[in-house]
Amino acid sequence: MNIHKFVMPEVIFGNGAIHQVGESCLRLGATNVLIVSDPGVIEAGWLDVVIKSCKQIGLKYTTFYDVTMNPKDSEVEKGCEVYIQNECDSIIGIGGGSAIDVAKAIAILATNGGRIHDYEGIDKIKNPLPPQVMIPTTAGSGSEVSQFSVILDTAGQKKMTIVSKSLVPDIAIVDPETLSTKSAHLTASTGLDVLTHGIEAYVSLAATPLTDVQAKNAISLVAQYLRPSVASKINKEAKTNMAMASLQAGLAFSNAILGAVHAMSHAIGGKYPILHGDVNSILLPHVMEYNLLANPKKFADIALFLGIDIRGMSDMEAGKKAIEYVKNLTLDIGAPQRLSDIGLEKEEIRKMSLIALHDACMITNPRDVTVEDIEEIFRKAW
Amino acid sequence: MNIHKFVMPEVIFGNGAIHQVGESCLRLGATNVLIVSDPGVIEAGWLDVVIKSCKQIGLKYTTFYDVTMNPKDSEVEKGCEVYIQNECDSIIGIGGGSAIDVAKAIAILATNGGRIHDYEGIDKIKNPLPPQVMIPTTAGSGSEVSQFSVILDTAGQKKMTIVSKSLVPDIAIVDPETLSTKSAHLTASTGLDVLTHGIEAYVSLAATPLTDVQAKNAISLVAQYLRPSVASKINKEAKTNMAMASLQAGLAFSNAILGAVHAMSHAIGGKYPILHGDVNSILLPHVMEYNLLANPKKFADIALFLGIDIRGMSDMEAGKKAIEYVKNLTLDIGAPQRLSDIGLEKEEIRKMSLIALHDACMITNPRDVTVEDIEEIFRKAW
Repeated sequence: MNIHKFVMPEVIFGNGAIHQVGESCLRLGATNVLIVSDPGVIEAGWLDVVIKSCKQIGLKYTTFYDVTMNPKDSEVEKGCEVYIQNECDSIIGIGGGSAIDVAKAIAILATNGGRIHDYEGIDKIKNPLPPQVMIPTTAGSGSEVSQFSVILDTAGQKKMTIVSKSLVPDIAIVDPETLSTKSAHLTASTGLDVLTHGIEAYVSLAATPLTDVQAKNAISLVAQYLRPSVASKINKEAKTNMAMASLQAGLAFSNAILGAVHAMSHAIGGKYPILHGDVNSILLPHVMEYNLLANPKKFADIALFLGIDIRGMSDMEAGKKAIEYVKNLTLDIGAPQRLSDIGLEKEEIRKMSLIALHDACMITNPRDVTVEDIEEIFRKAW
Repeated sequence: MNIHKFVMPEVIFGNGAIHQVGESCLRLGATNVLIVSDPGVIEAGWLDVVIKSCKQIGLKYTTFYDVTMNPKDSEVEKGCEVYIQNECDSIIGIGGGSAIDVAKAIAILATNGGRIHDYEGIDKIKNPLPPQVMIPTTAGSGSEVSQFSVILDTAGQKKMTIVSKSLVPDIAIVDPETLSTKSAHLTASTGLDVLTHGIEAYVSLAATPLTDVQAKNAISLVAQYLRPSVASKINKEAKTNMAMASLQAGLAFSNAILGAVHAMSHAIGGKYPILHGDVNSILLPHVMEYNLLANPKKFADIALFLGIDIRGMSDMEAGKKAIEYVKNLTLDIGAPQRLSDIGLEKEEIRKMSLIALHDACMITNPRDVTVEDIEEIFRKAW
């Protein structure tokens, strides 16, 4: 085993944890906080809860919520202006991966200047970031614990992946109650993103014993609780366990990085305004089929984590059962099945394959890929 | 599930990781570091490795190694004088739990003043601590990742448990190669301490899903690798896995706290100069027998983690098998079996039971205890 690193924020987990946000900021030395969210979070009432907690503790605050799906460089720049104009000294991000990724990207620009494009890639951030407290509301992105921020380069029509230890927030507040306002579609889409994080981290070339335990648990929890979570907004047991699954999958992929599904999904998300989780779940079984050869034992483990009885099976057989399970799960919860279903044009395959080939997430994919291999996987998923 | 918190340092794990200590300190802003170790670590040559790494990177340093087993308040005070006289701004601790606990305690006094006794209990530390990098060399204490420091009150003849999030070091460097210089007895004793951490954290009243995954893995690794690790100084696979077990058990108990074994062991360690791990391993099966009633399901899980085939057994039956397994493991590796073997006087039982009853670790023990219950357990272990 090579030398490896593992890093995570302080985590506060549980129903009602969101009410600790003001106190958490204060503990980090915050006095004037920028709260980044999105219109959906505001409508659900969660921004009000955060504001109340900040007010109670005497924190000054400013809000910013011009954040869209697959968030854009321009949104980060606008948010940074608000941060500077209001002399903020700390950041709260509340929402799905978009709001949290924008909050992190604003944190970069606030103390490092320049454009967000300057920080694409690994370890490009020089100065320490302001205190950051993140509150996920989707049980999906894992961004509240990760070293990642993914921002759309609008001019270049591609997603930029920014990776740095300083993007790990100081405190992640995970409150399962915030999941009760999500639609069934969003629950399905983000839940399949969690599964993708768990599986890609587990078979990643950078996986370690510390990431494996997290990935394993995340995969098991999704297998047990994603269906009931899609079925009911108020099933507390399902929400709590999906929140934990998302957190653990986030810890796994933050430290083990991801693979071809995310590389390809970033390419598509750069051009089409489609839910990240939907693209991932379409691609996941196809990429699993392609990657199976690279580590049959680990794919057999995944079958076991999913609850499949693999006794008497070879690793290859068990791995195939895992792929079948994933396909069935996406069908059960009504996830889109083909890229053509979500409006993608087939002529784009070559271009997108080239972009995917150079995505940072491709480096840790367990099987070597050429641009032709990616095209072939895209075609199968069309 | 109530709201719970989980916190851990950045971890750097792997053979050769120790050479990253200088760079790690630099990254935390250190310029002049106090290196706390003990005579055994110096003899094994590990202090020289740390000094070389600091020199290479241009760090000023001072060493302090007046640290003994069950480390004392007077040692902390002496170390703090050295820190202040030399105008240090950061701390490295390298060694077993003693050196690391002293390093942490010096960090407290360095920025908070007073006597170490002022900080006994939970969350008594007000000011931020200087940067801390810890390097365990025993695969035992877990102190390199924990919120704990345990220091002996020499006048009061009792161990003081200090608990605070700010005692979690900034960086823990875990290098399995440092385990190759430990004696078989020390390997056995510290390894059984790891098992005790894993088991007490798993059945603790403060256990959470995040601590359970760590405790589970630690218990499994001890069952697989402690015997071969005691048998050979150079079995790299065994050393690597015991280092991981110690780390994971540390993450578990740091966040789930411990139980009656540690409460009772602290009472004994306050008076007798005996290896902490030896006392723990003698007490562990007796406390497990006492606690079984409190959570048969979790004790059955432990049997499973230990590799026992529990099919067809009730939880109580499986839990008893786990206890039997622990007894056999201690016999296999030649650990002391009775408190009388290690020189304890029976007349002390009442006094020690009273001290144990009020130890911070007793709060999370899964079964209620009276002073008479503790006396009874002590007598069984005599």
